[in-house]
Amino acid sequence: MTALATVTSEQTEFINGVAGKLKGFLSGQQELMASVSPDVEPLIGSISHLVTGGKRLRALMCYWGWRGAGGQAGNPEILTAGCALELFQAAALIHDDIIDRSDTRRGGPSVHKRFSQLHELNGWALDSGRFGDAAAILTGDLCLSFSEESFTEIGPRAAAGTPARRIFNVMRAEVMAGQYLDILEEVAGPVRDRAGSVDRAQSIIRYKSAKYSTEHPLALGGALAGAPTGLLKEYSEFSLPLGEAFQMRDDVLGVFGDPETTGKPAGDDLLEGKRTVLVGFALNQASTADAEYLDRMLGNPDLGEDDVARIRRIMVQCGALDATESLIAKLSNQAFEALERLPLDDVPLTALRQLAEAAVSRAA
Amino acid sequence: MTALATVTSEQTEFINGVAGKLKGFLSGQQELMASVSPDVEPLIGSISHLVTGGKRLRALMCYWGWRGAGGQAGNPEILTAGCALELFQAAALIHDDIIDRSDTRRGGPSVHKRFSQLHELNGWALDSGRFGDAAAILTGDLCLSFSEESFTEIGPRAAAGTPARRIFNVMRAEVMAGQYLDILEEVAGPVRDRAGSVDRAQSIIRYKSAKYSTEHPLALGGALAGAPTGLLKEYSEFSLPLGEAFQMRDDVLGVFGDPETTGKPAGDDLLEGKRTVLVGFALNQASTADAEYLDRMLGNPDLGEDDVARIRRIMVQCGALDATESLIAKLSNQAFEALERLPLDDVPLTALRQLAEAAVSRAA
Repeated sequence: MTALATVTSEQTEFINGVAGKLKGFLSGQQELMASVSPDVEPLIGSISHLVTGGKRLRALMCYWGWRGAGGQAGNPEILTAGCALELFQAAALIHDDIIDRSDTRRGGPSVHKRFSQLHELNGWALDSGRFGDAAAILTGDLCLSFSEESFTEIGPRAAAGTPARRIFNVMRAEVMAGQYLDILEEVAGPVRDRAGSVDRAQSIIRYKSAKYSTEHPLALGGALAGAPTGLLKEYSEFSLPLGEAFQMRDDVLGVFGDPETTGKPAGDDLLEGKRTVLVGFALNQASTADAEYLDRMLGNPDLGEDDVARIRRIMVQCGALDATESLIAKLSNQAFEALERLPLDDVPLTALRQLAEAAVSRAA
Repeated sequence: MTALATVTSEQTEFINGVAGKLKGFLSGQQELMASVSPDVEPLIGSISHLVTGGKRLRALMCYWGWRGAGGQAGNPEILTAGCALELFQAAALIHDDIIDRSDTRRGGPSVHKRFSQLHELNGWALDSGRFGDAAAILTGDLCLSFSEESFTEIGPRAAAGTPARRIFNVMRAEVMAGQYLDILEEVAGPVRDRAGSVDRAQSIIRYKSAKYSTEHPLALGGALAGAPTGLLKEYSEFSLPLGEAFQMRDDVLGVFGDPETTGKPAGDDLLEGKRTVLVGFALNQASTADAEYLDRMLGNPDLGEDDVARIRRIMVQCGALDATESLIAKLSNQAFEALERLPLDDVPLTALRQLAEAAVSRAA
């Protein structure tokens, strides 16, 4: 079998294994919930729905981090780790969608929207939106607890004081800190110095996304397999710039992406007021009038299609899109160079190369 | 030393120990946050503020569950467990206050309110309320992660597969389920059968409050000390009715309590639309007109002081208050009878008696 064929077959087996484990885990939780009341069923239902889809990027990074450090294929502990990461991602998405007021997720209604629809369908009293938000806050909390419950089930390799546990803890704290920096920049950005906006956006990306989506999962897999510190450091040199490039690609798609492909409305990020690296470049490189217009329209509920088109034009003409694409290219190169230096067998190396290529060149 | 004097001295030492441990834990987290950005400081600040006050009921139940099962005073593991429970309670309060739109907590602003005030003070852009809610969702998530991080630090006694870990997991899942039942009843109650409202309210109390505030913490302490299943069962016979009586006392105070003493506005629970056992009795025992009025006013933003006074009168006149007080008395008696049957030494028995008395006879 070629390395690529082995990668494909191992990945399929792993992803199916994680899906099976998630199903088993959630059906156990459903039993506990049913013992409380059948009314609680939609909490688990919406978590199950959410963990069924997705790219499983974090679980796969974790898997190849494990395999690269000598962990065996088909090991139940790494399946459990993948399950914990998927549950953590689901919890983050549920709360993120409330924070960003995103009513859609993977082409369907987001969790708070599902609950507000349940409210309307049943003709319940009071406000359906408030009910939806409240139910989604609780569902996210439950899912966050499940993530940790699942992580602990790994056993001794993830027990108190182990490197894997430390990475898991830091990952959670840093992503929440990064998300706070993100919402802070949305409101504080307009009154802060424009010159610092690109740096601040890069810092947000690092904590909110790069460390969480690629660096920590890869390190976690490595640590579970007993990787020495040196290898974890080499992993980082690859995964951190990769994660940054990945998120910047996401940010470009959030403004220029095709709604048909991304599954999100055009200019969604602009309406949410996200102050990305792309926005940072535009604020600094556009004319004062254009920068002021951009500052005024970000997060503005009156933002219309014409505004989205005008902002796109500003970003192209002032060179902000080019600057962002250059940065993505630079970070990608850094990542790919570090990848080729990794002391890995052909199979994990091929797998990481494939994941990296998909991450930076995607259209959705 | 009398048993009571030993209780007082041990409790003081334990509470100071938990406070010290919390301070150390959070200052370690503050260092991690500072390495991300000084902007993140308010997240830890608001958690520190929240864990400084409170009755520490859950930590104390855990401590005496531990001592009753033969655990030693001054043991660092039980301090860590107390710390984890306090952090869990803080996380629950942060999200609860968003859900209930409570702007005050322990006489000061609640966490979402603190963040919206920070927004206003700095003259940031966009909506301060939305920023406050978003920041508090993230702070609660961080605090929930901290709770588990702290719980894991207990080490082998709380490792994967231990009875203590199982109790901790079930506690989290059940309280979230109970909170969902609570918000569900607020909106679905008015269209459901009135005859079932007392039963539903009792089920909400059991999961949202009794199991979480008294039953699980006591069992957790016992399990950490290696208590046999029989003792945990006897613990439950005491702690479950106690917790139910405790929450019903809270519910009575939520309508009839003195704002000066409770620190919450008069009739706050009515404005939030809480459908408590007290409300359930009123809906069933009041005249149809009064019950319909009550249904209409619960959670109604137009609810004024006159309405609160009228609802109080209805609850007194139809006998709902008496029925609730009788139920509190019945559950208290059950708890105290079970307490006296517990096979405990004089010191833990005295401590639990004191905690139980404070829980059911309080005015705030």
